[in-house]
Amino acid sequence: MDSIMHILDLIGTAVFSITGALVAGRKRMDTFGVVILGCVTAVGGGTLRDVVLGRNPVFWVSSPHYLTIAALAAIGTFVVAHRWRLPEMAIAYADAVGLAVFTVIGFQTSFQTTGSFGISIIMGMTTGVVGGIIRDVLAGEIPLIFHKEIYASASLAGAALLALSTRLQWPASLAILLSILTSLGIRLAALHWNLTLPVFPPKNQRP
Amino acid sequence: MDSIMHILDLIGTAVFSITGALVAGRKRMDTFGVVILGCVTAVGGGTLRDVVLGRNPVFWVSSPHYLTIAALAAIGTFVVAHRWRLPEMAIAYADAVGLAVFTVIGFQTSFQTTGSFGISIIMGMTTGVVGGIIRDVLAGEIPLIFHKEIYASASLAGAALLALSTRLQWPASLAILLSILTSLGIRLAALHWNLTLPVFPPKNQRP
Amino acid sequence: MDSIMHILDLIGTAVFSITGALVAGRKRMDTFGVVILGCVTAVGGGTLRDVVLGRNPVFWVSSPHYLTIAALAAIGTFVVAHRWRLPEMAIAYADAVGLAVFTVIGFQTSFQTTGSFGISIIMGMTTGVVGGIIRDVLAGEIPLIFHKEIYASASLAGAALLALSTRLQWPASLAILLSILTSLGIRLAALHWNLTLPVFPPKNQRP
Repeated sequence: MDSIMHILDLIGTAVFSITGALVAGRKRMDTFGVVILGCVTAVGGGTLRDVVLGRNPVFWVSSPHYLTIAALAAIGTFVVAHRWRLPEMAIAYADAVGLAVFTVIGFQTSFQTTGSFGISIIMGMTTGVVGGIIRDVLAGEIPLIFHKEIYASASLAGAALLALSTRLQWPASLAILLSILTSLGIRLAALHWNLTLPVFPPKNQRP
Repeated sequence: MDSIMHILDLIGTAVFSITGALVAGRKRMDTFGVVILGCVTAVGGGTLRDVVLGRNPVFWVSSPHYLTIAALAAIGTFVVAHRWRLPEMAIAYADAVGLAVFTVIGFQTSFQTTGSFGISIIMGMTTGVVGGIIRDVLAGEIPLIFHKEIYASASLAGAALLALSTRLQWPASLAILLSILTSLGIRLAALHWNLTLPVFPPKNQRP
Repeated sequence: MDSIMHILDLIGTAVFSITGALVAGRKRMDTFGVVILGCVTAVGGGTLRDVVLGRNPVFWVSSPHYLTIAALAAIGTFVVAHRWRLPEMAIAYADAVGLAVFTVIGFQTSFQTTGSFGISIIMGMTTGVVGGIIRDVLAGEIPLIFHKEIYASASLAGAALLALSTRLQWPASLAILLSILTSLGIRLAALHWNLTLPVFPPKNQRP
């Protein structure tokens, strides 16, 4: 299970970097901007998690291969996008895998450090969504997750289920699998049917 | 005094979260965006303070009730704003209380850790104003405190007075009370008379 | 060499603060916004470096004179800009010195802590460019370094050369000098000839 999680983690890192590179491309950034935005998207969530929990140094300082993978994925995106159109739906699906896996890793990392279910649910979400928030802020946009189809709530559901199954002492591999399937299922359903949460305040009350 | 400060701290947390939720509402964010922006506004300043001072983990990891209160305040704002118009001036007054209290708590937390008056004045201001800065950046706006009526300077004045009275070894409760009244007085006066600081560079020198 | 580096470091701090104050001025911020943006630009890169590496507390808490210099430089800019037009090219040249020096200091600080060449190159760049990124985000703009003439790459080149010469055990003062001349040379050349990196994706492929 551990090695499968590690592979999924690296895939999530690469995919998040690709989304960062694509946003950089849409904003017509240069080569360096593309690589930086890719890396920041890929490691931003885990970095904030480690800083808040006081895990020193942050994970990519002790395991620099995360940055290497993120940089390569961003450069690859840059090269490929000069020739072919990237399949947007494929990237959205892969991004959903990244979100689900990062949520599990964030929860577990935090639970080992704090032993708190509540904090670990929040750290699961933080690890999953903060990279994308920083990406959008650096690109000069209001973060997507604040007003687009269900995203952070998919992460929250997966983290909450993982907390529950950890408390019930289910086998770790089953707990992880269910959590990933939950986040992934909700996120893919949201993408497919374009589901959204209620907006504040509702349109019909605005003049 | 300690328990009064703790109650004021919780009130400040709730009020800052409400201001975050209201900005999220103005930007038509969804339920989740409202809760996240509320929480970030409420704990952002104290988080940066703890990270910069190396206090690990940050305060809301060891005391999660801050996050609970912030989340409930944001959800409450969401629910209430669907039915009634929120009284803007009442919120601005409560926000001024939060600013004054957070300044004191930031100064004291930092002074216990560093023993430095200068750093603690800056940490008082950081605790008071950084949540609002993050709120505005995430909402895609230039932070209010950079160009609107006196805000950070009210916090600075309160923190500086607290440093002075700490150095003069005045009784803690008197020092705290004077600091809060100073920040609060300046901020309310600024709100009431719409006071501003000089702008850079003055208009009449622009073509 | 150490005392020359320290003087250059303080000059870099002052110059970075001036660029922050000038951006604040362009956005018509008030006195306080000018000082805060100046200080954040000056110490932002080193702060993120220290936080990521787990160096607690961050450098300006133990050496507050960095903040004093940054604040004085910002206030000075405010005062001077009310009377005279600031020489833009002189500031761009001084900023290039700051970039080159901060890169060296960031690399060395990180190398002492981690012993990793790769991480220290990244930390050199981080120290050099992150202050400007935060400045631009707070001013509501997409960071300059993502789409303007070569900037982060000048820092990268200087840091990489410093890593190489450290590995080859060249004398420290020679290594530092070469690194600074490299960053500075690339940056000044970019300013002079308006050099840019390729943009993603190229214009001629856009409809």
